[in-house]
Amino acid sequence: MATDKVRGTRDFYPEDKRVLNYIFNSWKSVAESFGYEEVDGPILEPVELYRKSGQEVPEQMYRLTDKANRELVLRPETTPTVARMISARRDLQKPIKWYSVSRCLRYEAPQSGRLREFFQFNLDVLGSRSMMADAEAITTAVRIMEKFGLTRKDFYVRISNRKLAEAVILDAGVEKNKLKEVYRLIDKLGKITEKDFVLSLKDIGVNGDGLLKALKADRLDDLNNYDGAGELRELFSFLKKFKVDKYCVIDLTIMRGFDYYTSTIFEVFDATKELRAIAGGGRYDELAPNCPGIGYGMGDVVLELLLRKKGKIKKLDKDIDYFVAYVDSSVLDKAIEISEKLRERYKVEMDVSMRNLGKQFKYANSVKAKKVIVVGPDELKQGKVVVRDMTTGKEEKKDISKLT
Amino acid sequence: MATDKVRGTRDFYPEDKRVLNYIFNSWKSVAESFGYEEVDGPILEPVELYRKSGQEVPEQMYRLTDKANRELVLRPETTPTVARMISARRDLQKPIKWYSVSRCLRYEAPQSGRLREFFQFNLDVLGSRSMMADAEAITTAVRIMEKFGLTRKDFYVRISNRKLAEAVILDAGVEKNKLKEVYRLIDKLGKITEKDFVLSLKDIGVNGDGLLKALKADRLDDLNNYDGAGELRELFSFLKKFKVDKYCVIDLTIMRGFDYYTSTIFEVFDATKELRAIAGGGRYDELAPNCPGIGYGMGDVVLELLLRKKGKIKKLDKDIDYFVAYVDSSVLDKAIEISEKLRERYKVEMDVSMRNLGKQFKYANSVKAKKVIVVGPDELKQGKVVVRDMTTGKEEKKDISKLT
Repeated sequence: MATDKVRGTRDFYPEDKRVLNYIFNSWKSVAESFGYEEVDGPILEPVELYRKSGQEVPEQMYRLTDKANRELVLRPETTPTVARMISARRDLQKPIKWYSVSRCLRYEAPQSGRLREFFQFNLDVLGSRSMMADAEAITTAVRIMEKFGLTRKDFYVRISNRKLAEAVILDAGVEKNKLKEVYRLIDKLGKITEKDFVLSLKDIGVNGDGLLKALKADRLDDLNNYDGAGELRELFSFLKKFKVDKYCVIDLTIMRGFDYYTSTIFEVFDATKELRAIAGGGRYDELAPNCPGIGYGMGDVVLELLLRKKGKIKKLDKDIDYFVAYVDSSVLDKAIEISEKLRERYKVEMDVSMRNLGKQFKYANSVKAKKVIVVGPDELKQGKVVVRDMTTGKEEKKDISKLT
Repeated sequence: MATDKVRGTRDFYPEDKRVLNYIFNSWKSVAESFGYEEVDGPILEPVELYRKSGQEVPEQMYRLTDKANRELVLRPETTPTVARMISARRDLQKPIKWYSVSRCLRYEAPQSGRLREFFQFNLDVLGSRSMMADAEAITTAVRIMEKFGLTRKDFYVRISNRKLAEAVILDAGVEKNKLKEVYRLIDKLGKITEKDFVLSLKDIGVNGDGLLKALKADRLDDLNNYDGAGELRELFSFLKKFKVDKYCVIDLTIMRGFDYYTSTIFEVFDATKELRAIAGGGRYDELAPNCPGIGYGMGDVVLELLLRKKGKIKKLDKDIDYFVAYVDSSVLDKAIEISEKLRERYKVEMDVSMRNLGKQFKYANSVKAKKVIVVGPDELKQGKVVVRDMTTGKEEKKDISKLT
């Protein structure tokens, strides 16, 4: 992988793209096993689309002004695009179950787990207020992690509820006009120490110790009387039905950067919390008009870091079924004919550089072809070719008509 | 499909994305059947990368200046990225056979067959000077068209050679310093009349009638003595071996916009020439240092227009194997358990909105589920569920243990 550390971008050589495709295919197959359908939108969107995306994301957007003086941005996330697409169509059968695998860009300092250009899997259910939708969305995230061979030892899901968190924070004595600022400080927990957290809160006249204690409640019984606790209880009862509750913990300190979340919020984390969030999302009931929604995003960068750490990414070879070698140019016609026939079902390479047989074999070895077919003038007279199994080294003469 | 005609972008709803994926998968499967490997690069590249892309493309690039004052562009094509990636690595086994399916952007007037944002299939062979490489590349383009069900009645390939065209043009009396301007006018043929072409040439002191006649040579025998004719002859002998020569005609009036082509150039066209080029490419022996190359791009926009015109795009339905319905919430646990088990092999939907059975069936119909499993309290007592085949309407009771 060639990562340009200054620009925060990557060149995907074949060996890198195979890994990326392995990640993409795992995302897709889990989403489709739950009946989600793939969608996509433009990579350039009008800047106004992100006015509900909170503070951090708009600051990190790549912006440009087009010739008609429209201010456009390279999409930093895809949920606003999905909400726009939903709003534009009245004929969609609800609930709408969509997923996407999108290239997104954010202009931020490249560092471990963060690049300026990344790919994000997004999964959304729209048009349902049931907590069963939230549970299904979280379940898909768990199934994806399991598909990569990860277990409860490797990752877990932290779950909160915006209404509940707000009620707890207000109850701890925070004034309403200070909520957003407190949210932002809570969002930094994990990056700053609890001591600094309390000090920062003191600066704005909030009793940080009390708040911290309140936020550490992780049992539903302790939160019974607050707004949003009922939703969270219902969500957990569904998570149990999906048998993913063992992965899930209540954690009121997760906040998520986006302003549009209204209820459930959740993040998938590696068990040791050494890495950034692997996935995150929540319920956004007011982003698309009259269309409640729940969804999440999972980026490729942190995920790949975790998979490599856990040894879950094997070296993937180039996948070639046959290499068709020609002894000399007199048999080239026949060699091409055999290749073209085999290509209807197999992955077949030939040397396009007209090199000698030795060099052709060297190349066949380097691409790890499973079998090499040698087309030579003598065998050809009998309608045969030599087939060499590159794993066992065994060779046999075969009728050309019996190759496919 | 929701095309934003002002912005020249598209929203891909599920029914649109299925069509796009059908196109993507056809591209990929043909490329891989020839042993090409997928690669990708960043969507933002430094502006300098495109200094060899001719005149038109750089004018149409979306540009932005980042916070470090670097001038970046949204990639208008991918060949320069491929050339950069090749140059950065010395360990690559030659010939290098790569393909990519890339989102590209060009700021031009949206019109039939042209959008500002499109997807482009690119296929390149690097590190070989043999015309067999050119023939293989052209063959892959033909096989892609055939894979879509198109025949010689629907499309053909126009082939030229830059060296040959230059020799013919110089021989028709054009001075060397006027070559680029003449190239640009030839490139406009098809969009402007031959009369206007001749008049425009007269303006710069060139005998247009003579040039036009020279360019209309379409038999190798007439071109024998010119530079580049040998290459073209060799190319056609390989095209014959690949059995795609019936699709190919010599046409010296094709030019291609990019300055980096050095030898073979070709374009795939619909037989009636009503549409723009479906694919185009050529040999670029000086783009990457010491690494000759041949490649082409095929965009999704004109291709889809042609496929729709020829009735080659069927309506693709959502693909759901099972819809698992629950009679009431008392059996929800079991219904979820059955779904989760089936998801290991099938695409399975459930209603996440907790609606009644009638609405669940309505939804199952709308997503065209092949089978509906009804989980009810009475059957459950016997360890059974009702399975309804939605095509035949037949229902049968089945043991839960025998579902998978």
